[in-house]
Amino acid sequence: MTTPRPNKSGFRRGPNTGAKFTNHDPDHGRLTVAKKEKFHPTNRLNAKNINAQIRVVPLGGMEQVGQNMMFIEAGDDIVVIDTGFLFPGPEHHGVDVLLPDISYLTKNKDKIRGVVFTHGHLDHIGGAPYIIPELGFPQMYATKLTKELILVNAEDGKVRSQMKITEINPTSKIKLGKFEIEFFHINHSIPDGVGIVVKTPYGHIVHTSDFKIDHHPSDEQPADLGRIAEIGKQGVLLAMVDSTNALKKGHTISESLVEKEVAKVIEQTNGRLIITTFASSIGRISKIVEAAENCGKTVFLSGRSMEKNIAIARKLNYLKCKEKTIQRMNPKANKMDQSKVLILSTGSQGETLAALTRMAAGTHRDVTLNKHDTILFSSSPIIGNEEAIVSVLNNLADIGVSTIDKNDKDVYVSGHAYAEEIKMMTALLNPKYFAPIHGEVYMRHGNRDLIVNDLDFNPKNTFIMKNGQGIVLDNKGARLMSDKEKISCGSILLEMGEKISENVLADRTLMAEGGCIIVTLMHKKGSITNLDIRAKGFRQVNMNHEIFKLMHKDIKDSFARIYAPEKQKSALEGALKANGQKLLLQKFKKEGMVEVIIIEV
Amino acid sequence: MTTPRPNKSGFRRGPNTGAKFTNHDPDHGRLTVAKKEKFHPTNRLNAKNINAQIRVVPLGGMEQVGQNMMFIEAGDDIVVIDTGFLFPGPEHHGVDVLLPDISYLTKNKDKIRGVVFTHGHLDHIGGAPYIIPELGFPQMYATKLTKELILVNAEDGKVRSQMKITEINPTSKIKLGKFEIEFFHINHSIPDGVGIVVKTPYGHIVHTSDFKIDHHPSDEQPADLGRIAEIGKQGVLLAMVDSTNALKKGHTISESLVEKEVAKVIEQTNGRLIITTFASSIGRISKIVEAAENCGKTVFLSGRSMEKNIAIARKLNYLKCKEKTIQRMNPKANKMDQSKVLILSTGSQGETLAALTRMAAGTHRDVTLNKHDTILFSSSPIIGNEEAIVSVLNNLADIGVSTIDKNDKDVYVSGHAYAEEIKMMTALLNPKYFAPIHGEVYMRHGNRDLIVNDLDFNPKNTFIMKNGQGIVLDNKGARLMSDKEKISCGSILLEMGEKISENVLADRTLMAEGGCIIVTLMHKKGSITNLDIRAKGFRQVNMNHEIFKLMHKDIKDSFARIYAPEKQKSALEGALKANGQKLLLQKFKKEGMVEVIIIEV
Repeated sequence: MTTPRPNKSGFRRGPNTGAKFTNHDPDHGRLTVAKKEKFHPTNRLNAKNINAQIRVVPLGGMEQVGQNMMFIEAGDDIVVIDTGFLFPGPEHHGVDVLLPDISYLTKNKDKIRGVVFTHGHLDHIGGAPYIIPELGFPQMYATKLTKELILVNAEDGKVRSQMKITEINPTSKIKLGKFEIEFFHINHSIPDGVGIVVKTPYGHIVHTSDFKIDHHPSDEQPADLGRIAEIGKQGVLLAMVDSTNALKKGHTISESLVEKEVAKVIEQTNGRLIITTFASSIGRISKIVEAAENCGKTVFLSGRSMEKNIAIARKLNYLKCKEKTIQRMNPKANKMDQSKVLILSTGSQGETLAALTRMAAGTHRDVTLNKHDTILFSSSPIIGNEEAIVSVLNNLADIGVSTIDKNDKDVYVSGHAYAEEIKMMTALLNPKYFAPIHGEVYMRHGNRDLIVNDLDFNPKNTFIMKNGQGIVLDNKGARLMSDKEKISCGSILLEMGEKISENVLADRTLMAEGGCIIVTLMHKKGSITNLDIRAKGFRQVNMNHEIFKLMHKDIKDSFARIYAPEKQKSALEGALKANGQKLLLQKFKKEGMVEVIIIEV
Repeated sequence: MTTPRPNKSGFRRGPNTGAKFTNHDPDHGRLTVAKKEKFHPTNRLNAKNINAQIRVVPLGGMEQVGQNMMFIEAGDDIVVIDTGFLFPGPEHHGVDVLLPDISYLTKNKDKIRGVVFTHGHLDHIGGAPYIIPELGFPQMYATKLTKELILVNAEDGKVRSQMKITEINPTSKIKLGKFEIEFFHINHSIPDGVGIVVKTPYGHIVHTSDFKIDHHPSDEQPADLGRIAEIGKQGVLLAMVDSTNALKKGHTISESLVEKEVAKVIEQTNGRLIITTFASSIGRISKIVEAAENCGKTVFLSGRSMEKNIAIARKLNYLKCKEKTIQRMNPKANKMDQSKVLILSTGSQGETLAALTRMAAGTHRDVTLNKHDTILFSSSPIIGNEEAIVSVLNNLADIGVSTIDKNDKDVYVSGHAYAEEIKMMTALLNPKYFAPIHGEVYMRHGNRDLIVNDLDFNPKNTFIMKNGQGIVLDNKGARLMSDKEKISCGSILLEMGEKISENVLADRTLMAEGGCIIVTLMHKKGSITNLDIRAKGFRQVNMNHEIFKLMHKDIKDSFARIYAPEKQKSALEGALKANGQKLLLQKFKKEGMVEVIIIEV
């Protein structure tokens, strides 16, 4: 929320223009914004002979944190990046997941040359089981772990078996229509994430995806700064950069420091220890298991996603430990020396059915917490989950367990770059145009301000995209798509794997707020023979209440007024319904649901 | 969430035992816990001759942050403290407010000698318009501002006119049955708050209510530490102390510093400035108006609660300014020199219909924000409001306004004591028994740990109360009420001022999650003549879907099986409904609502 002030000592890098400078030059040869743009490496790229414009269009992730997906289109070629989902908010009654609206792509599926994935988090791959079939099973590209997670996440075997996924690594080069795709290694809270370079006829487009720069991660390589610099030197036309922590000053601490701190807690805790973390933090989880093994503890898993991800981590050799070190949570754990028991549990976000939530509520089948237990939260609350987490904390406090979290010790670090890392990435890439992606809208604005203020980036060359409203690149440069060019782009709502409509959701919202009044009207050639009014979830349960008398009279009068033998039943029902709902609104200053059933006898 | 470590240098005070000590004593004469208890001043109080026990019972506020209310009962005398409400969460579909369950008090209303209020926040007074009539309009006691707020909040003139409120101040003494009530001045985020001393036959019970200690507030007196110490010297049997910020280390900054910082922003902002803060922060608001007047700005009010509270502040002389300095927001403000415009707005919590929310969304009638505007948040997010606030921030970022909040400058301070203030209060009161109140359950545990660890308080003398399960005081000392003694204590749900039942809420929840299937069955002596099935808000809108065919068959078969002429219609309907709901659960592994209407023709 803070607007970063210009920081003249910030990291900055001019393009390699060969200009010489001496120490007498007060600016040390730094180029002004205008000069930087004039000498930008992309100006030396020759746009190959194409007529069509290139469009970079996000389909999700711009107006929500999740359901990340975008496509890049040049003429007849489309490359898709990621197919993420989003967990619903309380306003999405009964909806299980939200997906980006892919109607533009389903209409143009013959143009799709491939779907490229950046990493294995559900907000980047979670929509694949639904979206990939809808797009006609295009060729997919993912790193080893990401590929495995996509396949495991596709629970329907028929869908899974039709998915064609080519495994890539940071050195892979693939050609998809007019596009050449390359990758670069970055760090994140899940291993095997990559940034993407899409080489287009107009220049190179870089998508950092979720990233951070860790100079000393414990289970993988540091982000490949040399390679990123090299990409920058080749000339980047457009960089799309993660904004999630743009408003956080400084640099993330290293994952290896976090793992050392967590290992210390594991070693020093004498009683039973429960650690909760994101099941997808496979790197951290592996280190937890190693630390447990080192001090003779057994790791018991509680929570389906924890078991699933550990199985993958073992299969792909991300996690190496003795067979017996890891067990599924079972009653035997309660008979062991409790100082040798470490439970790895889901539920760091207070999710209703997650293992830790059930432990705290006293409803977990195998774990009954007591005041000798210690709970370590290697996690941070996601916006919107605060109340649920507090409810777990309250239950834990009542039991009297000890808790440790990131406010006590360095037992958690975010997977997203802080301001200095974003500046480092952007300075190295040195793009001509800049578009912040990922995070809340205000964080993306914060990212843009950071680059403009601290890296002297020309604000005219920055773009805040919207879902369906991305960037057009052509011979003249870059611009945001106009409102007219915008692709209609809502969300797909899924309930148990099936699409439900906005109308259904609207009806649910109405009934959630005030219940439903059901009117059954029987008539014989227009004369009412029976009129039944009842209510479900309505504020008034007493059927003698004035509102029901009013409604009775209103329906009767309205029916007499509007009935005509030639009128369709549905039209009559609709008119009576509208009248009834008007009456409710008048009476209570609040909208309500009335459903009218007419039966002719 | 952090467990405070014992801090040997912390503030501590033994009772005045007259014991002498020299510098050679390594403990400086400090008493051990056991000795402290032995010499505690309450041990010199003589319990007056009563047989009954005294019960201190919270009716709300223990399992939620809000709806604060408790009573103290000795024989035939009951004193009630506060009658607060709580705003609903997303699970309380259509409910406007939640109130404490007062069924014990309505059954014992002839024992109620008075209702005493601590301060004018809605979580302490908001339930009065409903609760006070239910209790038969007992005598009420409140300070000047609190009294005014209670009256204004009672929108129904008939209720308001029957309320009997005696104005008190920190020096008042009142006698209510066996109890003598005294008060002491504390600081909070609203002026005119008091702590309460209830002198009982067994000793003195102190209720700090929401408090902080501000040594230099700008618009009122500092908390009366001398008086609090005096109360402590007289001997406090039980102290109930605010826990909201028990886990925050150190001491709150002074309200006067915050007001200076806000005044600086007002003075230095050249464009239009919008300040959002809690409408009840009457002290801070008054200072904002003064600062605006000092630099020739006009204050425009936007938001009903802001107008209401400013009117009260002016009426009671908490706010002194020229008539023309304050105006209701109106289109004229847009024609003025914008550097002279300060808008005071509701909406710091992202509330759906609040003024700032509408400004950010572009739907405010009189205010169209632009990038030259500055928004100052003199506020902090309340747990559960984070998503709503982020949505406002996103809209503001899209408009391009500048924002300032507590992370940028000292423009906000909490009204609740931090750890050092809690320790100061408790050390001065020096109670025999300690019960943390207010805040989340884990914060109350944190408060208890603080007192036990830092003040060497005997943990056996501390009590974590629950709603309906308070403390029993008798000749033997103090103890928590047993499960058997517990008073049943849920919440009252109000929709537009009327009570709605848990069943109604359960029906709404079911319909919110999956809509409703309505079955209309007509029959003639048991043979079905018509069977209409329709769905509202149900996942399947296609009436040819398998589920409707199954339901049709199921209802038909079930009816044939269970129908008997002597059976009541409601029993038949109930049986078919249960069958239909079982079918839904089987089919979709998710509960659903089926409503069956049987009509005999």
